[in-house]
Amino acid sequence: MNAQSPFLNASPIQIAQHLAQQFAQTAAERDKIGGNPKHERDLIRQSGLLGLSIPVQYGGGDADWKTIFQTIQTLAQVDSSLAHVYGFHHLLIATVQLFAQPAQYAKWFKQTAQENLFWGNTLNPLDKRTTATKISDTAYIFHGDKSFCSGSIDSDMLLCSGYNEAGKLLIGVIPTEREGVSFLGDWNNMGQRQTDSGTSHFEQVKIHQNELLLDPGPLSTPYSSLRPLLAQLIFVHLFLGVAEGAFEMAKQTIQSQKAWSKSLTEQAVQDPFTQKHFAEFYVQLESVRLLANKAVDSLQTAWDRGENLTTEQRGEVSIAIATAKIAATQTSLFVTQNVFQVMGARATTAQLNLDRFWRNVRTQTLHDPIDYKYQEIGEWVLTGKVPDPSFYS
Amino acid sequence: MNAQSPFLNASPIQIAQHLAQQFAQTAAERDKIGGNPKHERDLIRQSGLLGLSIPVQYGGGDADWKTIFQTIQTLAQVDSSLAHVYGFHHLLIATVQLFAQPAQYAKWFKQTAQENLFWGNTLNPLDKRTTATKISDTAYIFHGDKSFCSGSIDSDMLLCSGYNEAGKLLIGVIPTEREGVSFLGDWNNMGQRQTDSGTSHFEQVKIHQNELLLDPGPLSTPYSSLRPLLAQLIFVHLFLGVAEGAFEMAKQTIQSQKAWSKSLTEQAVQDPFTQKHFAEFYVQLESVRLLANKAVDSLQTAWDRGENLTTEQRGEVSIAIATAKIAATQTSLFVTQNVFQVMGARATTAQLNLDRFWRNVRTQTLHDPIDYKYQEIGEWVLTGKVPDPSFYS
Amino acid sequence: MNAQSPFLNASPIQIAQHLAQQFAQTAAERDKIGGNPKHERDLIRQSGLLGLSIPVQYGGGDADWKTIFQTIQTLAQVDSSLAHVYGFHHLLIATVQLFAQPAQYAKWFKQTAQENLFWGNTLNPLDKRTTATKISDTAYIFHGDKSFCSGSIDSDMLLCSGYNEAGKLLIGVIPTEREGVSFLGDWNNMGQRQTDSGTSHFEQVKIHQNELLLDPGPLSTPYSSLRPLLAQLIFVHLFLGVAEGAFEMAKQTIQSQKAWSKSLTEQAVQDPFTQKHFAEFYVQLESVRLLANKAVDSLQTAWDRGENLTTEQRGEVSIAIATAKIAATQTSLFVTQNVFQVMGARATTAQLNLDRFWRNVRTQTLHDPIDYKYQEIGEWVLTGKVPDPSFYS
Amino acid sequence: MNAQSPFLNASPIQIAQHLAQQFAQTAAERDKIGGNPKHERDLIRQSGLLGLSIPVQYGGGDADWKTIFQTIQTLAQVDSSLAHVYGFHHLLIATVQLFAQPAQYAKWFKQTAQENLFWGNTLNPLDKRTTATKISDTAYIFHGDKSFCSGSIDSDMLLCSGYNEAGKLLIGVIPTEREGVSFLGDWNNMGQRQTDSGTSHFEQVKIHQNELLLDPGPLSTPYSSLRPLLAQLIFVHLFLGVAEGAFEMAKQTIQSQKAWSKSLTEQAVQDPFTQKHFAEFYVQLESVRLLANKAVDSLQTAWDRGENLTTEQRGEVSIAIATAKIAATQTSLFVTQNVFQVMGARATTAQLNLDRFWRNVRTQTLHDPIDYKYQEIGEWVLTGKVPDPSFYS
Repeated sequence: MNAQSPFLNASPIQIAQHLAQQFAQTAAERDKIGGNPKHERDLIRQSGLLGLSIPVQYGGGDADWKTIFQTIQTLAQVDSSLAHVYGFHHLLIATVQLFAQPAQYAKWFKQTAQENLFWGNTLNPLDKRTTATKISDTAYIFHGDKSFCSGSIDSDMLLCSGYNEAGKLLIGVIPTEREGVSFLGDWNNMGQRQTDSGTSHFEQVKIHQNELLLDPGPLSTPYSSLRPLLAQLIFVHLFLGVAEGAFEMAKQTIQSQKAWSKSLTEQAVQDPFTQKHFAEFYVQLESVRLLANKAVDSLQTAWDRGENLTTEQRGEVSIAIATAKIAATQTSLFVTQNVFQVMGARATTAQLNLDRFWRNVRTQTLHDPIDYKYQEIGEWVLTGKVPDPSFYS
Repeated sequence: MNAQSPFLNASPIQIAQHLAQQFAQTAAERDKIGGNPKHERDLIRQSGLLGLSIPVQYGGGDADWKTIFQTIQTLAQVDSSLAHVYGFHHLLIATVQLFAQPAQYAKWFKQTAQENLFWGNTLNPLDKRTTATKISDTAYIFHGDKSFCSGSIDSDMLLCSGYNEAGKLLIGVIPTEREGVSFLGDWNNMGQRQTDSGTSHFEQVKIHQNELLLDPGPLSTPYSSLRPLLAQLIFVHLFLGVAEGAFEMAKQTIQSQKAWSKSLTEQAVQDPFTQKHFAEFYVQLESVRLLANKAVDSLQTAWDRGENLTTEQRGEVSIAIATAKIAATQTSLFVTQNVFQVMGARATTAQLNLDRFWRNVRTQTLHDPIDYKYQEIGEWVLTGKVPDPSFYS
Repeated sequence: MNAQSPFLNASPIQIAQHLAQQFAQTAAERDKIGGNPKHERDLIRQSGLLGLSIPVQYGGGDADWKTIFQTIQTLAQVDSSLAHVYGFHHLLIATVQLFAQPAQYAKWFKQTAQENLFWGNTLNPLDKRTTATKISDTAYIFHGDKSFCSGSIDSDMLLCSGYNEAGKLLIGVIPTEREGVSFLGDWNNMGQRQTDSGTSHFEQVKIHQNELLLDPGPLSTPYSSLRPLLAQLIFVHLFLGVAEGAFEMAKQTIQSQKAWSKSLTEQAVQDPFTQKHFAEFYVQLESVRLLANKAVDSLQTAWDRGENLTTEQRGEVSIAIATAKIAATQTSLFVTQNVFQVMGARATTAQLNLDRFWRNVRTQTLHDPIDYKYQEIGEWVLTGKVPDPSFYS
Repeated sequence: MNAQSPFLNASPIQIAQHLAQQFAQTAAERDKIGGNPKHERDLIRQSGLLGLSIPVQYGGGDADWKTIFQTIQTLAQVDSSLAHVYGFHHLLIATVQLFAQPAQYAKWFKQTAQENLFWGNTLNPLDKRTTATKISDTAYIFHGDKSFCSGSIDSDMLLCSGYNEAGKLLIGVIPTEREGVSFLGDWNNMGQRQTDSGTSHFEQVKIHQNELLLDPGPLSTPYSSLRPLLAQLIFVHLFLGVAEGAFEMAKQTIQSQKAWSKSLTEQAVQDPFTQKHFAEFYVQLESVRLLANKAVDSLQTAWDRGENLTTEQRGEVSIAIATAKIAATQTSLFVTQNVFQVMGARATTAQLNLDRFWRNVRTQTLHDPIDYKYQEIGEWVLTGKVPDPSFYS
């Protein structure tokens, strides 16, 4: 850990809470504007949290996954766009660890920890428009577009991908400033509006052989196949954080309200219907918190096993995370929709912009269809078959 | 019916469908802008539908309630803001019929039918800031603010209200251009964004005795107490229309999609999970359509009874409408939230602005708390007591 | 209508209500005993209701389907076993009308109307153990077992079936006393305990050519394919009736109860949570009533079209009935389970036997999987394809 | 631990599993019969598990609460009646620890551990028919009836209660064979049929002063008020165990079934709808398991604090248990009802008696209304007020 480490004086959670307090001031407004939250991204850089997942030998925070997910969840309570790109930064760091060897990534990690580099994503394996062409023994040309490139704009490092002639997916790591890389800035969606999840364009971008993650490469072993599970578990903490944020906001709103004129009580907090709604929210949130914790523990154990991880053990992590994801999806949609029921019509003013909680989880929960998480769990319950690794399971 | 009546060549439903087609072109865009949809309001004026609820002896369409609600529902399928202000126009016409006598309102109705006047609302009885002060035997001064004045801007006639010193609510009808009337244009909420439901200001506005609705006056008899039930039934048709619009949009979206890669089928329309979701939507929508129909029939029967309507009969209409409202509320929230589940992530693009369906019903369903509709029905089931008339039941 | 017709002095509904009052006295006790409700079956015979669906030219009540279904629903409110076998009696009468010609069935109908014959079912097309072997130009031997033969014991006439060597299903009508017919009396299930839905055994039973329903035969035309839809619609009215019975019982129970000690109110009927539960029950029941009504109207129209009925028209009836069945299934399970929530622990005494409501619908709703009703509706919504006729759709 | 301790060779969980295997053989049959499961109660006695909760200094198993609850849950998976009376035995042991001092209860505990005494319950504080009259400085007469006396028949020791003239509840411990004690054997309810939860009669029963639990007495301190929380947490494990039992049974049933004829797959375990149902069951069960675990940990911490436990700390345990109880209630009803959906009609045969899972949880979940658990949690969320201790919270 370097001398300026922010972790000397405050825990990562405290740092995340401090960031969250700052982000909360402007989250409603920034959601309306969309685009790139440059100022807030720089605050994340300055916080030192970008090094949290980097092993200590490279100057990082060497945090366990529980801590990393908690920082994501904390940010998501107030701003799920920033939580997303921050979470994905750590996902990309982990991707390199899972798909490559220390000899290759040591310098990237040192630089990231030292200079607080922010990693961005141009990986989307479903979008096959970017091609990878070998031009020499040591170099490739990546060319074409990729959609859903969260956190790409204002990033320092990029995880990128292209399909070669044989249809194989090649994944590389480059500085974002590499010649030929550009971003269309075309992300303008109903939720997660400051994630810059738009299109990247690679114009004849040269990528060196030693920038490609080939050993062991993507999803090549049970261990390397933890990558999509990490992504899914980040989503779980996004959903949970957003739901907690909406819950807290509704609680504070209601605490000074009168009950409806026909209520048996004077104050909203004493109204039986209102109390039952909040209890429903609470029971669901508490369930998701515990399911998420269990999934994190399961993931950490698998992570610690490294390449010794078996297919079956990886499958069990997959089930734990799918379980948490189903509950987090249902709960976050339920809570963000129904907090309005307890707050009433005045909560709909655009100034408060409280629909952003729902818009954010409704958008992010569509990353891949939840029906197929049910399908995976049901198949496993009935036949014992664990889900086949893919970029979505 | 006057010679230029649009009803000579097309049914009201057809006219509403024609308007809906036009509104659909710009609904997504206008939702983002908010503000007053002047152009579309003028199209409604020109359509002749503003006279639909006016008795034939005053030159109106003399339509039954079923027809009127169908036109509201048709507009709501594509634009629930315009459906709202259009529906409230007919509510205000009906309010005059319920709270006053033909001798008083004949001229207003004739003029409305002949000149396609658009009525707006500045009534909100919960907001007591506007005072009514008698200044002579024949005149009052209304002074102060009112919130939630849907359809006020760009209206031709206004229903307005003020509380006198004794705390009695006085309701009047004036031309919107009456001196002293102004609107703050401060409606900027997460849904129903083109309803102009902002604040009106009455600056020492003079209102004549013969503009006040005093015979029989507001909620003074079971018959006059049909007014809030009409408002609730307009909401039911708004919710239903929006849900139908979202359902139709999702259906069209899915029809050309591939199923998810793990599906047993090639096409989305053959995917079992997708089919079950649509069936759930359909069963709920069908239920709401039938409950709404029953409520409309019940309301029409009560309307036709006029001042012979008993408290008990009015109570039964109230229960039928509350029943439909509960189902319409739950269904519209369910459908507008879950259509995204079947459409997937690409449906979240701001260009399509498909979250407006959810934002519109989430906003409008908060008009008054649905918990107390359950309460009313439950009490009636268990004790036989019908809800006491109020501006919300 | 014959001179002793019970329909001279009372409507079919009134007769059904009178029967229901009698059955209600012993329903809880008879559910425990199971077996054949001979006494009650004779009361149904004496009521004249068995002739209700028989055309007037054969001496029957010539009732429309709405009336017939209402009598089924009325009986189901207190005793869904008797409602089932009574409903199936009419289904079997209709089966003959749909699968055969008047010249063949005239004598059966006359005799049924005159002597109040009770028809029973040994048709189950899924159970292929009964074989049909042609032994001459005019006779067949049916031999083997059939399961799920509701209403077979104590019946006067039987609809029976067997598969011939070519795998074709032959359906016949015989007097139950035909030599070789016996019943194992082995129905002992958790619900619908007095339906005698056990196994029949045909020991070399001779069936004459003119007892077989060959013109047009089973499911051979859209019109004849109304048969399974009638069966499904009978189920809808069973589920609805049971749910209404449970609702009414819970309502009466609660009306004299104190609220829980922590309630804001003294009496249970004033408790907000209790009121909301009953409102939820009511809204769901009301939806099912309307969906069932619509399905009945749709079925009646199709019935009246006779052999002019098109595949598409038949498909629309199928969708209306599937829609009602989904809602009736969910609602009847919801209501019969949750009425206990409002009644409390003392409602669990075996003396009251109130779990029979749930056991009856839980059993009967499993006739065929409701998931595939969703599937049918979803496919129709998305592709326009109506369900293919089968004995289950 | 005495020399013959069964815990020398097997863990308590293993012993419970062994008992469960034996009980499973006859559970369906015994449910039908009802009454007292003398043979199985003796097997519990012989297993040594009755001493599990007794501190080691009195010769008991000195188990932590996690272990005790796991044994309850294990039994509940196959027989929730035996799990109930077994769980209540430990509740009654704990009651003595909470309401009295070691000097008083040492001999009871030693004897219980040594002779495997089974404790029964005649405490019901809501039933005030049993009076307690002081007849000397050292003796009282208890006289009258008590309802809901679970586990009373065939017990060796009884916890009993009576109200004195001042309306104070006195709780005592006596040998069941004490003169004047009798049981009506009138428990015949739809579920929990072998819990003997019927009426006890005390005919002038003499109770000595030193048999009364007066120091500190019932619910007199936060610590002693843990008693009702223990009872509630036993219920949670009953509900969870029953739901797990139903889930396991459905899983095994489905594994050899063909899918419905319209399914896209051959085998039921591959059917998408079936898979989704099982995933729904699994996600809910997993949530309840984690919520129950958290509640147990919370309870254990509070138990270990002893009389140092504060009102606030006790309140937090109360919330954790109420949370688990809500989820366990909803889940156990959901699972036991819907397993039938996946198993189909043949699962309704009385021979299998699979409705007992639903009947058991439907009965036991009515112990006290779940609505007021929501109320308690909602009030705590909104106001911070923890539930007031009572025999139900």
